Amino acid sequence: MLFRQLFDPETSTYTYLIADTSDKEAILIDPVLEQVERDLKLLNELGLNLRYCLETHIHADHITGTGKLREITGCQGIVPQNAQAACADRFLKDGEVLQLGEIPIEAIATPGHTDSHMAYLVNGKQILTGDSLLIRGCGRTDFQGGDAGILYDSVTQRLFTLTDDTLVYPAHDYRGQTVSTIKEEKQFNPRFTGSDRSSFIQLMASLDLANPKKIAEAVPANQQCGKVSATI
Amino acid sequence: MLFRQLFDPETSTYTYLIADTSDKEAILIDPVLEQVERDLKLLNELGLNLRYCLETHIHADHITGTGKLREITGCQGIVPQNAQAACADRFLKDGEVLQLGEIPIEAIATPGHTDSHMAYLVNGKQILTGDSLLIRGCGRTDFQGGDAGILYDSVTQRLFTLTDDTLVYPAHDYRGQTVSTIKEEKQFNPRFTGSDRSSFIQLMASLDLANPKKIAEAVPANQQCGKVSATI
Repeated sequence: MLFRQLFDPETSTYTYLIADTSDKEAILIDPVLEQVERDLKLLNELGLNLRYCLETHIHADHITGTGKLREITGCQGIVPQNAQAACADRFLKDGEVLQLGEIPIEAIATPGHTDSHMAYLVNGKQILTGDSLLIRGCGRTDFQGGDAGILYDSVTQRLFTLTDDTLVYPAHDYRGQTVSTIKEEKQFNPRFTGSDRSSFIQLMASLDLANPKKIAEAVPANQQCGKVSATI
Repeated sequence: MLFRQLFDPETSTYTYLIADTSDKEAILIDPVLEQVERDLKLLNELGLNLRYCLETHIHADHITGTGKLREITGCQGIVPQNAQAACADRFLKDGEVLQLGEIPIEAIATPGHTDSHMAYLVNGKQILTGDSLLIRGCGRTDFQGGDAGILYDSVTQRLFTLTDDTLVYPAHDYRGQTVSTIKEEKQFNPRFTGSDRSSFIQLMASLDLANPKKIAEAVPANQQCGKVSATI
């Protein structure tokens, strides 16, 4: 298996490239529009065939690269069940396994940051958590059907029940951290340690964050798999 | 073994935390002053004992965190042989192995970006290349005793002779790339593919890069292991 973490500095987004090195099938998880050229070049150099682009959720902070990558490569665009993205080729439901060559990628419903959100367990060992669980943090819950109580349940009942040594790879990091483990997050994530469900809800309600810079264009574009309107 | 890649967004610097998880001994390679608090917190959370801070070279773009980390933890500050840093506790020469618990870290002289520069081969499998070989690029050679011909030799005769599957972890990346392999860099690094030694020297001479923003403070500070003068 090839596993590459790629970073978009403008939005602090991590994209993940995973490939079965025997049959050369590849997937990109949470690709970013502005990085499509970089990602295609890397796929090409490594001799990989992009089979899927997979989203953890409908992003509000960046436009997905899926639409452009699908146009160029013919890959399938896949989103979580119930995501508002009729343009997708396939919708994954909780527990469903996407097979990439020999590599199983299991969808784990983790709503709360948005109402349709999946984490993906790769090979039973690495969990791509999207914007649900971040390293020593978590995604915000104040738009797109976000719900702090539901996020608390997703993290504590779904992600924190994975084995302690599962590697945690989030969709964002703002402090230069690249990876963690379930054990570490259970012990040291300040959003979840020492706070019960109701105090977590209170904390999330008090954050008073500014909207992401690109939300007005990103959400509608991502509901069309990254199609950017002609006026932009 | 624990292996963590950490990023400083301001200077696009990668710091590496490596630890022997059985005896809890840890090393930081190329720590950044502004990230000392983050790194200490992580060491503390993971229950690690910082034994060494190791530099690939005297940096011009950021101030090392070594001095501050040494003050706080009592760790040893280690630099390449001939580095202008009399403050260091130890100097590594080409081929010397620094032992971290069960993990061997072998110094490989790779001058050219600066006149004293080492890459470090961790466990025979991961090469921390500093500013010699970058992912699809290389360090500049126009100050601090830099020499393009010598860098060409370091990369092609020392690094490119490592096994193809050696993972390449550089000290910087500006395009969101986190890791590569020796095989990939031999095949796809535009600075070294299809260019012989003399055309590489010509190319490096033509780059005409602006000085790093922090060079005036970083170099003298790093020659004192990261001690920042009272006037700054």
